[in-house]
Amino acid sequence: MSVNTQLNYQEYDEKTSIKNKLDDYYRAQTTKNGLESLEKILRYLPKKYSNYRLERGIAFAHLGMESILERVAEGKEFAVVSGLNPSAPLHLGHKALFDLLISLQKIGGRIFIPITNDESVMDGKAENLTASRKMAYEEIIPSIIAFGFDPQKTHIFVDSDYPDIYNLAMHLGQSITMSELTKAFGKESLTTPGQVFYRGAVQLAQILLPQLPEFGGSQPTLIPVGIDQHPYLLLARDISKKLKMNLPSELVIKFQPSLKDPEAKMSGSKPETAIYLSDTPELVRKKINKAYTGAVSSLAVHQEKGGVPDICSVFNLLTFHQPDSVMIEALKSRYISGDLTMKELKEIVIEFIIQLLDEHKARRSNVSNMDQFLLSTPLRSFLGKEY
Amino acid sequence: MSVNTQLNYQEYDEKTSIKNKLDDYYRAQTTKNGLESLEKILRYLPKKYSNYRLERGIAFAHLGMESILERVAEGKEFAVVSGLNPSAPLHLGHKALFDLLISLQKIGGRIFIPITNDESVMDGKAENLTASRKMAYEEIIPSIIAFGFDPQKTHIFVDSDYPDIYNLAMHLGQSITMSELTKAFGKESLTTPGQVFYRGAVQLAQILLPQLPEFGGSQPTLIPVGIDQHPYLLLARDISKKLKMNLPSELVIKFQPSLKDPEAKMSGSKPETAIYLSDTPELVRKKINKAYTGAVSSLAVHQEKGGVPDICSVFNLLTFHQPDSVMIEALKSRYISGDLTMKELKEIVIEFIIQLLDEHKARRSNVSNMDQFLLSTPLRSFLGKEY
Repeated sequence: MSVNTQLNYQEYDEKTSIKNKLDDYYRAQTTKNGLESLEKILRYLPKKYSNYRLERGIAFAHLGMESILERVAEGKEFAVVSGLNPSAPLHLGHKALFDLLISLQKIGGRIFIPITNDESVMDGKAENLTASRKMAYEEIIPSIIAFGFDPQKTHIFVDSDYPDIYNLAMHLGQSITMSELTKAFGKESLTTPGQVFYRGAVQLAQILLPQLPEFGGSQPTLIPVGIDQHPYLLLARDISKKLKMNLPSELVIKFQPSLKDPEAKMSGSKPETAIYLSDTPELVRKKINKAYTGAVSSLAVHQEKGGVPDICSVFNLLTFHQPDSVMIEALKSRYISGDLTMKELKEIVIEFIIQLLDEHKARRSNVSNMDQFLLSTPLRSFLGKEY
Repeated sequence: MSVNTQLNYQEYDEKTSIKNKLDDYYRAQTTKNGLESLEKILRYLPKKYSNYRLERGIAFAHLGMESILERVAEGKEFAVVSGLNPSAPLHLGHKALFDLLISLQKIGGRIFIPITNDESVMDGKAENLTASRKMAYEEIIPSIIAFGFDPQKTHIFVDSDYPDIYNLAMHLGQSITMSELTKAFGKESLTTPGQVFYRGAVQLAQILLPQLPEFGGSQPTLIPVGIDQHPYLLLARDISKKLKMNLPSELVIKFQPSLKDPEAKMSGSKPETAIYLSDTPELVRKKINKAYTGAVSSLAVHQEKGGVPDICSVFNLLTFHQPDSVMIEALKSRYISGDLTMKELKEIVIEFIIQLLDEHKARRSNVSNMDQFLLSTPLRSFLGKEY
């Protein structure tokens, strides 16, 4: 046995240990935070209402989602809020999330999408408000609409241009103390008045907005979040309780992984980690060819030991976007056994993603009804009687 | 000498010591805070530009007001910002301040008046936003306009209805740290995210608004404040420096005293301390008759020792509102010498105030041009190029 071969086994062992570490992390976070796995939800949710993103562990835990299930069973609506910082064009990680929102819309979800350009300004990701507005209206909102949302049940608003979100925030910002806020976010996330207000009031206004009388009053609301956002959801639930509003439910999702690092997520501000929806076929090919994978570099070792698809950014493009679960399972077995080479997988994925983006670009170029989606309802009932 | 007479001397001594205490307080505050008295300003300000409120010590100190004088000398405009929490109808204390603003307008001041109904909500003084809007538009703004402002040079806005003030605040809220803010306001004034944002960002946006390109760009701005607000002005000056904007100047004013307590100010939320502009003649008479005065209760002692007009809430109604300084001086001498009885003074003041309010009510009932005063300019240049 040569030194070289030993090194290659080590690579495989490293990849396996990353997978185990991530599995452990998500399991530990679920237990530690008193979250529940999605198992029971999936058992009770009629198959026709299910979605491969729930089944494949992309959404992996929840808190209080039973109240959503009840509404679905009664054939009633529920609300979903999922905001977006418009600091860069949308990438495949956004598509995964928005596709999940659309499947929630199909089972009764009324979707609220705050475009948080105040957050972009606050965290320095937008040069100024004009740049963030341009990004929102010219780039992001048309892309979101192209995913296929129902204009009757989708409300998009840009924070800077929906003034009542601030009026609501000024109200809600009195329902929480600085010490509660600091406990949830940590002092280092609250170094300026802008951060304090955004995190302690504007975000809360976004989450509670669907429960205002203008939108049907107190109702179950589902908030998809990353696991790191769980403390803020707990805080929002505490405030809701204080305000005698319905406690928002939490659906914890894994983000589409970075193309470069299995432990990081795809990020719009780091182009090498992401495939943007506007990327050309050539760029897609180049990015996927250079992506981090779950296969070791030696073909001989790969064929002997197999690969680790769970941490493979290329394979995850299928997991997050290919609805055909039979095909996924077949490829996964071949990947694990070492039968599927990375060259072969990459060709499959490149072709799939190029087609996905082509379809998206075609739908996007036909978007002409932005106004139907933009929320402009003045908030009056909660803030006081009509004036 | 009977015990009774001694007690009455004691009353006189007490009133004198309150006057001395207040004089010492204002003198000490001026020195301690590095403020300058108005003396030099008054020496350089041409008499035709002066105003009895500056001369009588109602405005008593300043910081950086030389830059305003320069503009006046050059015949150029300057900005003045004076906000108002619309939690109760206007009283005579407001009239004194707004009359001062009008005299500043006459020498070139462009006046910005934020009606801070977000502050009312934040500090619990308004039940909700609707109540605070009603108070603003039906009660306060017509009263302000009736004071005689020039619609070409006066910009009134209600915070909740001028959304760009929040967008500007989100920007400015990143120019200051929580530790700078806490140093200026104290932890106890910053217990909620709403308070932090209002005090650390919205107020700053109000102060710096006139310096945006939409209103003529960087220019001297005068902010009339009470002495307790001096630390916030210092903070605003620090931020302005950081942002390379003109440092706002400060004009420190004494507020119209409470009718009940020479050491407190007239407060709209304590009706017994204030004469509202809408009070009936009967109510004015009643309030003045029950007001705290600078005269002792025994007429004999008053005639022997005299009274203390400086701490007399009745005499101060003249000091703050009667333009005729000759008349004021004559009455003051007679008051100090004990020649003027309280009964006589009260009759003079009651008649004067009833007439003042009658005139105001008449002017107010003729106000029909509110829209000319309401600011609706969108803020674009500072927040980024036009979009």
